[in-house]
This record gives sequence, C-alpha cells and structure tokens, in this order.
Amino acid sequence: MKIALAQLNYHIGNFDANKAKILKAIDEAKKLGAELVVFAELAVCGYPPRDFLEFDEFIDMCEQSIREIAASCTDIAAIIGAPSRNSDAKGKDLFNSAYFLEAGKVQQVVHKALLPTYDVFDEYRYFEPARNFSCVDYKGLKIALTICEDLWNINDNPLYVSSPMDILVLEDPELMINIAASPFSYKHDDDRVKVLSDNCRKYGLPMLYVNQVGAQTELIFDGGSFVFDKDGEMLDQLPYFEEDIRMFHFDGSVISGLSPVPYVPLPDIEQIHKGLLLGIKDYFTKSGFTKAVLGLSGGIDSAVVCALAAEALGAANVTAVLMPSRFSTDHSIQDALDLVNNLGCQHHIVPIQEAVAAFEHMLEPAFAGLPFNIAEENIQARARGLIVMAFSNKFGYILLNTSNKSECAVGYGTLYGDMCGAIAVIGDVYKTQVYELANYINREKEVIPLNSIVKPPSAELRPDQRDSDSLPDYDVLDRLLFEYVEQRKSSRQLIAEGFEETMVKRVIKLVNSAEFKRYQTPPILRVSPKAFGMGRRMPIVGKYLS
Amino acid sequence: MKIALAQLNYHIGNFDANKAKILKAIDEAKKLGAELVVFAELAVCGYPPRDFLEFDEFIDMCEQSIREIAASCTDIAAIIGAPSRNSDAKGKDLFNSAYFLEAGKVQQVVHKALLPTYDVFDEYRYFEPARNFSCVDYKGLKIALTICEDLWNINDNPLYVSSPMDILVLEDPELMINIAASPFSYKHDDDRVKVLSDNCRKYGLPMLYVNQVGAQTELIFDGGSFVFDKDGEMLDQLPYFEEDIRMFHFDGSVISGLSPVPYVPLPDIEQIHKGLLLGIKDYFTKSGFTKAVLGLSGGIDSAVVCALAAEALGAANVTAVLMPSRFSTDHSIQDALDLVNNLGCQHHIVPIQEAVAAFEHMLEPAFAGLPFNIAEENIQARARGLIVMAFSNKFGYILLNTSNKSECAVGYGTLYGDMCGAIAVIGDVYKTQVYELANYINREKEVIPLNSIVKPPSAELRPDQRDSDSLPDYDVLDRLLFEYVEQRKSSRQLIAEGFEETMVKRVIKLVNSAEFKRYQTPPILRVSPKAFGMGRRMPIVGKYLS
Repeated sequence: MKIALAQLNYHIGNFDANKAKILKAIDEAKKLGAELVVFAELAVCGYPPRDFLEFDEFIDMCEQSIREIAASCTDIAAIIGAPSRNSDAKGKDLFNSAYFLEAGKVQQVVHKALLPTYDVFDEYRYFEPARNFSCVDYKGLKIALTICEDLWNINDNPLYVSSPMDILVLEDPELMINIAASPFSYKHDDDRVKVLSDNCRKYGLPMLYVNQVGAQTELIFDGGSFVFDKDGEMLDQLPYFEEDIRMFHFDGSVISGLSPVPYVPLPDIEQIHKGLLLGIKDYFTKSGFTKAVLGLSGGIDSAVVCALAAEALGAANVTAVLMPSRFSTDHSIQDALDLVNNLGCQHHIVPIQEAVAAFEHMLEPAFAGLPFNIAEENIQARARGLIVMAFSNKFGYILLNTSNKSECAVGYGTLYGDMCGAIAVIGDVYKTQVYELANYINREKEVIPLNSIVKPPSAELRPDQRDSDSLPDYDVLDRLLFEYVEQRKSSRQLIAEGFEETMVKRVIKLVNSAEFKRYQTPPILRVSPKAFGMGRRMPIVGKYLS
Repeated sequence: MKIALAQLNYHIGNFDANKAKILKAIDEAKKLGAELVVFAELAVCGYPPRDFLEFDEFIDMCEQSIREIAASCTDIAAIIGAPSRNSDAKGKDLFNSAYFLEAGKVQQVVHKALLPTYDVFDEYRYFEPARNFSCVDYKGLKIALTICEDLWNINDNPLYVSSPMDILVLEDPELMINIAASPFSYKHDDDRVKVLSDNCRKYGLPMLYVNQVGAQTELIFDGGSFVFDKDGEMLDQLPYFEEDIRMFHFDGSVISGLSPVPYVPLPDIEQIHKGLLLGIKDYFTKSGFTKAVLGLSGGIDSAVVCALAAEALGAANVTAVLMPSRFSTDHSIQDALDLVNNLGCQHHIVPIQEAVAAFEHMLEPAFAGLPFNIAEENIQARARGLIVMAFSNKFGYILLNTSNKSECAVGYGTLYGDMCGAIAVIGDVYKTQVYELANYINREKEVIPLNSIVKPPSAELRPDQRDSDSLPDYDVLDRLLFEYVEQRKSSRQLIAEGFEETMVKRVIKLVNSAEFKRYQTPPILRVSPKAFGMGRRMPIVGKYLS
C-alpha cells in the first residue's frame, strides 16, 4: 500500500487555510498514486487550540472541515486529527481524535487515551481519555492508529496506568501509525526517536509517524516525521522545520525499498537557530504582519535578535532603534551601527536624555533629596520601551523583545522597559547559548560585530555598570539555572553537586522573587524542555525559597 | 463527637506560617473540648501550589509539616489536606490527599479522585486520581471523607465517569466530611450550597464542609464553610471572607443542638466588594508590602480602586498620582482631588506635558509629517505608566492597576501604560458593575465624587474623546461580553438572542484580537466565573472570529 505522510504547517483556528492546505495535499497524494495520506494530530484546527475548544461553534467548524475533507477522499483514504464530541453524558465533552476517512465519508474515529497534562500541555482540560480501542482495517491492512502521547508511556516511571498499544496489539496489527503535534525543544529530538524506536521493538511492528511543523505563538513544532522498521531502525525522516509530503510503500510487512539509516541529530545550536527563525516567521505570517522593530543597544542580545529577525523576515522588514543615554559608551553605538550596516536593515537614532531629563524634572518635587537608584535606572529603560512602542504604533511594526533566559530567570530586566514586546525571541536561550548563537550566526562571515561578542555584558543604566557586579559568571549562573529551572533540583541537591551555598540560595531567591515580572513578560519562543511561560506555572505571592 | 471546623487563611509555600496557624488551631480546638478538628484541602502548603509541586523539596516540606502537625495530635484527631507521594511507579507521582492524624501519627491517607482540570484548575497536571476508596473510622464513627471536587459530579452532564461517594456509601458511613479549596466567584456560592445539599439528600447523610479563606494572588477563597443535615438542610455556616473556628456536636446520627436555617446569600455586589478587599489585603500581606500607589484620573475606575485600596490597606498607605495632560478636563482633576480629600490619602500632581513634548520632539525626525494617531495617544498613557512605576521603584509602593473588565475584554487599554500594575483590582469587574460598586461604596456617604459616577466615561487621550464614540453603550456591551466570555456563546447564538449582528461580530473580533495584550496584563483578582488570566487560555496568533 502506498502511503503518503503530510507534514504541514497549520494555523490555529484558521479553518479555511488549514482545509485548503489539507485538500491540496490530498490531491498531491492522489497524483503520486497514494492509497492513504496521513496528517497530524488536530490538523484541521491547529495545535494547541486551547480554550477555543470550549466554544461549540469552534467544534462545529472542526466537524464541518472534516466533512469537506472526507468528501474529497475518493480513490484515497486519509487519517487526520480533529476534536470529536463525546456522545456519552459522562466525562468531558470532547475527545482528541484521529479520523479515518474513505469513500467520501468518516469511516472510523479513534480517540487519544493518554492526555498530556504537564509543562505546556493541558489536554485533560478539554478531552476525555479513550477507554475502548480498536485497529483500523483498510484494504486488508490492520493499522494500530494512535495519537502522539499514546506511545509515550514506556519508561520506568510511566505517567499513565496503561498503554493503548498493549490492547491494540492483541488484534495483531501489521503497522503502527502515530499522528502527533509534538513541540520542539533542542533536547526533544533524541527522546522522540528513542521512544518511537522502543515502541517498534516492544510491539515488533513498523511505524509511520507524522508530526506538525510550524510555530503557534510560543510553541514551535519541528516536523521531522519518521519511518521505522519493526526492529526500531529508522528508515527515513522528513526534514526538520519545513513542510513536506513524502510517499512510502508498505508491502504488508515491511516498508519496501528502504534500508536503515543512522539517525544524525542536528547540533543543538543549529536546532535553536532554525527553531527561532521559524518562530519569528510564523508569528508574523500568522498574525498578518510583515515588519519588526527592536531596540538595539550594541550588546549581544539585541544584536542576535536583530540578525535572526533580518534572516527570518528580510533585512528590509527590520527597523532597529538606537537609544543611547548618558551612560551609553561610544563603542555601544558603534557596535550597533556596525550590525545595522552588516545586515542592511533600517535604523533610527533617538537619544533618550531629553525625555529622561523631563521625567527627572517632573518628579523632582516628589523625589527631592533622594539618591539616584533603581527608579532612575528604570526611567531610562522605560523611556526606551516607550520609544520603540511609539514606532510600533506609528508604523504597525511588531516589537521584538530581546531579553535572554538568564536575565528573565533572575529578574534582571525592567518591566514595561526592556521587557516590552510582542514576542520574546531569545527568552528561552540562556546567555551562554546567546554567545553560541552569535558565533553560529557568524559561522561564515562577521554579521554580529565581534566587539558585541567579546565585551563584558552591561545594562548601561548607571556609570561603569557590569552584569558581573551583581551576578555570578554566566557559565556558572546558566548551569545553576538549568539545574533549577529545567531539572527542578532542590537547593540541597545543587549544593551537594558543588555549587556554592550562598550563591545557590541567592540565585533561587532571585528566580522565585521574579515571578511577578515574568507573569507580564511577552510570550517566549520555546526551544528548551522548560521555558518560562505557559509551561511553567508558579504562584506569585507564594513564599517558597523566596 | 465534638468536631471543630477550622476555616483558615493559608499562604502558598509559607510552611512555617501555615504550620504555626494550624498548630494554634489544634490547641484552640483542644481547649474547646474537640475530639476532631478539620482543616481545608492542601492546607499545609496553601492552594494552589502550582508547579511548586514539581519540586521534590517542596513535597519533603509538606511531609515534614504533616509529621509535626501529627505529633501535636494527642487527645485530638485532625483531618488536613496535603499532597502525598504515589508509591506506585505507574501514574503521576503525587496524590491530592486528606490526612487523618491521631495519637501523634498519620493513621490514614485518603486521596482525591475527581481532579478539576478546567478554568483556573490544573489538578491533573500534578495528581493521580484515587482509584481505591475507604471510610475513616474514628472512635466508632465511620466518616466518608472526600476532597472538594469529589462531590461535584452530580449534575446532568457530569465531568467524570464515576463518583467516589457512590463507593464510600457502600460502607454505611454516618457522616460526610469534605475538605475544600473552592475559589470565590459572585456566582459560585449558590452552586456550592446546592451541590452539597444535593449530596446530603442523595446519600442521606449529614455533611461538614471546610473551605479555605484568603487570597492567593488572583484567586480569592471565600470560606463560608457549611454544616448540613441528612436532608440537605443547612444548619450553620461559617462567615464569608474571614477566618473562623467553630465547634459542632455530632451525636452519631445528627448534628445536635441545631435546626435548619435558611441560606441567605449575600448580594452580588457585596460579595464582590468583600472579595476585592480581601484580594488587595492578602496580596500586600503575603508579598510583604504595605503601601500602594495608583494613577488617579478623575474617572470612575481609578476612583473605585483608590477607595477599595484605602479601605483594604488604610488611607495612609495609599498614594494617588494625578497626571493631567493637555486633554484632561478641569473637572477631572477636581474630581480626583475631591476623592483624595474624601479618603484622606496622600497625593501628588505630576502633569505629563513636559515628558510628552520631549518624546514628540525626539521622535519628530522619524515621525515628521505623519498625523497624530494612536502612537501619540499611547505616549501619554505610557508616560503615566512610567511615572507611577517611578513612584513604585522609588518608595517601594505596589502599583495597583485600575483597568475594568469591559476595556480589558475589548482591548481598550495601553500596554505598558494604563495596563501597568502588580495586581489588577477591578479587571474582572465589568464597567456596569464598577458603577454598582461605586454606588455601594457610597452607600452611607459620598466617598466617590458623584461627578466621577455621572459623567460620560472618557480616556481623555485626544480632544473630546468619549468611550461611546467607538463602543456600544456599556449596558449592551457588558451583557454581550458576559454571554461571550462567561457563557462561551457563539456569534450565531448571540445574534439569535437579539444582539445586533454587526456589533456582535465587531465586539467578538475586538475581544479575540486583544489576546496579545491580555497576555501581558497583571494578574486580575477573580470575582466572576470566568476571569481573564489563568482560567481563560486562548491562543494569541490563533485566527478564529478575529
């Protein structure tokens, strides 16, 4: 049987666009001679639809899409993800389902049993888990059809009490098909390959796996759909971060014409680079904007974001605003100008002193006699935020936030100042990774001025300020943050691992005390296994290690 | 048996404070001659602990608290909520449990079966549902002990496929005890009384119900713990929005000495008023601050927030900043000053023109020849945001946000301008309810100047601007928003109900297009069944009715 895998980029709630894309893929698959075409989880509405699922009309639109797609399934069958209504009064009102479409109609609907409800996932918020299972029979082929997480219950400490494949395998299927919406992190690709391969070995079956590709606000889906043989060997893989449709021939026991290929993961930094480019591009495309603005300080963070934006959107669509203050060093302005010249993007220079002086004058009656402190530092950062937002409002540019994950973690950013923006491009990239990213961007030529990379990082909000005045070196800080944020280790464990006790306690307190700031941070493009934002939900007035 | 109900205000993750409070209540109950004292769900750590639960050390601290509390349970037993570890490798690592403590030790641990995972609740994110059930036996009394949601599965479209009481009742218990952390909304009290009463009638058992009281950032718990007889008649109720410990005598079949009392709900507006006061007070107390600052425009929203803050924190702890612009009318300043005088709080007047002129001058090269538009309007709002944040930073005041729910819904607010703040006091109160609240605050004397109540609302960001220029009348708008936001009705239904089609489509589009703004809004004190924030999770780049 000729089976096409369609790895597509959907747009949440954009039924017309998704449907058109799916119908086109069905046509294309037909032309290639496919008898079955497989789409991803919740393809008709995009993933994650979140609380749109609570609107009856939204579900009606999903059903309408399915009917129209089914109607086009003549001379071909399709497997495609969409929500379906639970006809039983008991339990949640919806299932997360895979529809089997053939002969112009819905022939079978299979429901997801294991509902990820952790990190960025909220599936039990919406869906009832499947409790009955059966394979799909098509032209004499018995397919064990599952949805994403359904295959992920095979480690030593499984999250769920049972696994759907344990039941489906009793029907003696010949092939596993898994449709997924599995978001990217630079650590996830290896896990994914291992879990799918383990399933093949455990059940002695080959597998076709179709993932979504494309970004939905903060979540980036990397595609990379796979084909495995029954021994868990990879036979083929669709590209990462791109749409693709590819055909395979299943002869009833093996995927024919293919032999095992070694799985070669992309280097982490290349994954992060590609992921961020897709994240930026899709944020703009899917929200209907083309042009970006950002504040450029001469430092490495805004330089990296500017270079990424220029690559994702085209340099002509990026406007950089240089906003020097009385504390800015000359080299900062020069470094920023060098970058702008290297990239060829537009820029404006708007010194902030006039506004800062106005505020200091206006506040003099209230602040008289009090020393310069964080209030005056923040006035500078917020005057800059105001200026870039004025560009955004005046010209319809989208403001890119340039905060990195290290500063986001310890709360070294000014709310309504440098924390402004529609999307935080490198908010899930630690400072040490930002350096790697800069070097990666410079892999062929100097795009980011070397001086921005080598000079000591500084917020330049008071004379001679340096990040290292009040923070540990970034290589130590970032390792500690990774252990605390990503690994959720306790201070006790961290101290036992050799981190200095005072520093551990101080850094954890900084992280926990900054929840009120992070609550108001723009959405952050997620590239790690634990990004700030929807996947990390902490109390604000909670008192724990703070 | 003498049973004390302890309705207390916990602080998330503040183990020392919670433990001290619990131990004090145990002592007090002992002195009153109680044989059993009942605390709320997750009392030792506060509710909701959110992702703190993913930290092993946090669970260790919960267990340590339980051990210390158990040690004090001599001559008295206690029922108290805390997380417990799941010893089975399969399933989530934790249960949401009720500990039965007696003779200095943990005697029994009962787990929650129905895990609310909707609106503000994320319990399946952390907890494995109980699958085994047994009653607690104490001094010959058989108690069916359940946790909050466990009793909520009795409507016509139940969220869960089974109910723990259906199993527990087979053991012939004599009393139901339910420990809860059930957050307040002005519509929730009636539902809660009905559900608990229905359980009593269904199972023919009396019930003791203990709720938490106090606010945890946006979530307000209203207490109002109940005692019901086996016919579902209310016998007594602890106060709303206050701590209390009260003793009851269960003689083996009935709660003695009490006869049915009619349930008299508080009027909605009084509930909202009390809830917001508690919300403000606890935000400050639990985050260790005492003083508030806010921008005062002369309009009704900031006036109401200022009056609430003065009542919750003391007028001496509230600083109002008046920031007139060239578009502010004289009466606005006078109305604001009248309010400040009525309340007796501190104020500053900081006209914004100087800063606005500075920004306009600085931006002239880039904006030359372009007409005044939203960019200049927002410069004013953001200059104000900057000023109040400077007061916050300089003096350690907490900035109160004064946006109402209607404007938050349609996106009529300036990000980093009037949308600044640590906590949004009336962000879950529609404009029409803000008027009710103003009148309620004025119930005994004119606190809020009548002029702030009767004048047409305006943002005063350009000459002669009025809200009604671009929005339907608030009584129509708020009804429509309630149907769309709280009731999740479709445009089709709303039009069928008589709302004008063009308006319905325009308003829904405004609401859906403002997700990017609401993502960065401060936490909003929740008083309705569907507040913006953690309980309403919408895609940002999603395209659905937008």
